[in-house]
Amino acid sequence: MLGLDPDPAALWPQAAPAAAATAGPVHAAAAAVRAHCAALIDAAAPACVAVKLQLARFEVLGSAGWSAMADVAEHARAAGLLVIADGKRGDIDVSARAYANALIDGAQTPFGRVPGLAADLVTVNPLMGTDAIEPFLTSARATGAGVLVLVRTSNAGASDVQDLRLQDGSAVWERIAELVNEMGAENVGAAGLSDVGAVVGATVPAHLARARELMPSAPFLLPGIGAQGGRVEDLAPAFLPGRAGGLLTASRSIAGAHLAGGGSPADAARTEAERLRDAAWALSAQAPAAR
Amino acid sequence: MLGLDPDPAALWPQAAPAAAATAGPVHAAAAAVRAHCAALIDAAAPACVAVKLQLARFEVLGSAGWSAMADVAEHARAAGLLVIADGKRGDIDVSARAYANALIDGAQTPFGRVPGLAADLVTVNPLMGTDAIEPFLTSARATGAGVLVLVRTSNAGASDVQDLRLQDGSAVWERIAELVNEMGAENVGAAGLSDVGAVVGATVPAHLARARELMPSAPFLLPGIGAQGGRVEDLAPAFLPGRAGGLLTASRSIAGAHLAGGGSPADAARTEAERLRDAAWALSAQAPAAR
Repeated sequence: MLGLDPDPAALWPQAAPAAAATAGPVHAAAAAVRAHCAALIDAAAPACVAVKLQLARFEVLGSAGWSAMADVAEHARAAGLLVIADGKRGDIDVSARAYANALIDGAQTPFGRVPGLAADLVTVNPLMGTDAIEPFLTSARATGAGVLVLVRTSNAGASDVQDLRLQDGSAVWERIAELVNEMGAENVGAAGLSDVGAVVGATVPAHLARARELMPSAPFLLPGIGAQGGRVEDLAPAFLPGRAGGLLTASRSIAGAHLAGGGSPADAARTEAERLRDAAWALSAQAPAAR
Repeated sequence: MLGLDPDPAALWPQAAPAAAATAGPVHAAAAAVRAHCAALIDAAAPACVAVKLQLARFEVLGSAGWSAMADVAEHARAAGLLVIADGKRGDIDVSARAYANALIDGAQTPFGRVPGLAADLVTVNPLMGTDAIEPFLTSARATGAGVLVLVRTSNAGASDVQDLRLQDGSAVWERIAELVNEMGAENVGAAGLSDVGAVVGATVPAHLARARELMPSAPFLLPGIGAQGGRVEDLAPAFLPGRAGGLLTASRSIAGAHLAGGGSPADAARTEAERLRDAAWALSAQAPAAR
């Protein structure tokens, strides 16, 4: 999966003409981000099943950034890719519903229908509990989309709260994993996968086997490959038989592949995306034996 | 404090002309939301110190909503109010930095400087740990802003994760409170208040005294008054001597005051905001005795 995490200071050269055609820093940056993401999608799409939009990178460009994000999502869909909105939202019921409408299914208003981003999967933050996640599930189930709950993230600070030990000796993240499994149990599809998935960082392989044990039907989003230090080869325990159990995501290692290995940005990105795809498929093929 | 949580289906009548002057559902809804929030600010500003923007309600209108939000923030600043961006963001370092730039201090790009929302306070989610909060603190300290960390939220589901018991018998939220206190200790101002505050729901008064004990220098944002069932009279333990220790926030009970008590929306909102202000001041005056 292609992570789209566009840093305005590290865009591909082919983004420059789009920026030059607009006025003002915000619109120029948004145009460049749009062009960069489109070129990256065109290069990597054949080796990917989805794009993951890091919402923060678009929001920093305000209204123009949000507009660029909607265009990038549309470009990805046109290339046959699923769209994952990585916003890690979480809020009380009415606010969670507004976020879910914003990212998934839109909303009816007295002024007519507003469309929303139409994402296929959204990341959500479970700190506020299941009632902060339910509105996302409602929107997802209305449109055939899915929800990916943060369970054990890939950053060093994840240990501050997620790894705290509860009275029974388990960690906070293991309890969150149980909640994910409970919420997803009511809707496991024919392929054995639920519509409630989990974000489990690829940087701590030791957690993956335990996470899979606690969430046997959850698709896993596995961030942290590449720039954050995770290795594809360590991820076997996260996979299920079949190819959809684990979704690898890499952002900077694909977009910046030419910086490490040379060549054109597009060629290098395609090669790196293909390498990750092949490695993931190899793991997936081994999965039944690995469990 | 005035919560701005605009539901397109429940706007004041004076928002209608702005919507009629635009084309398409999204722009009409955004124009109406902008007009509604401006009227609400004009009515309630004399009794408030800040507005709290619920980002979800603006994001559901996409790019047009984000643009309306920036205008509403500017309108609030022009009325002499602080702006709280209630987005509850939390992400790994580079993404948290982009969110902080988006909401607080803007960013330098190769295309020029992009401004950001220039919020005075932002709410953040601590599930991912202190390294997900630090970038917000960096931006806040560069501009004299502050950060409000979710500690114990006002919704029923808060118990799912925040109330889990750790091995020493304390709750997850109490450990988060300790992290807030540690992060804020390095920057306590002359008035005895830190720039790292806490969101503590007003719906469970029993938690307030303990939260204040764990975070003696943190400003508290106290959501949940009114529509969520919290009562101002129960909040005394949250306050500190002086008026800035506790920030009450009410959204639907102010915007919808005319539905309950009659009168014009603006007059009813002003009256309700004044009632809450007076109740909070009375608590604040009692605070030294209450501790």
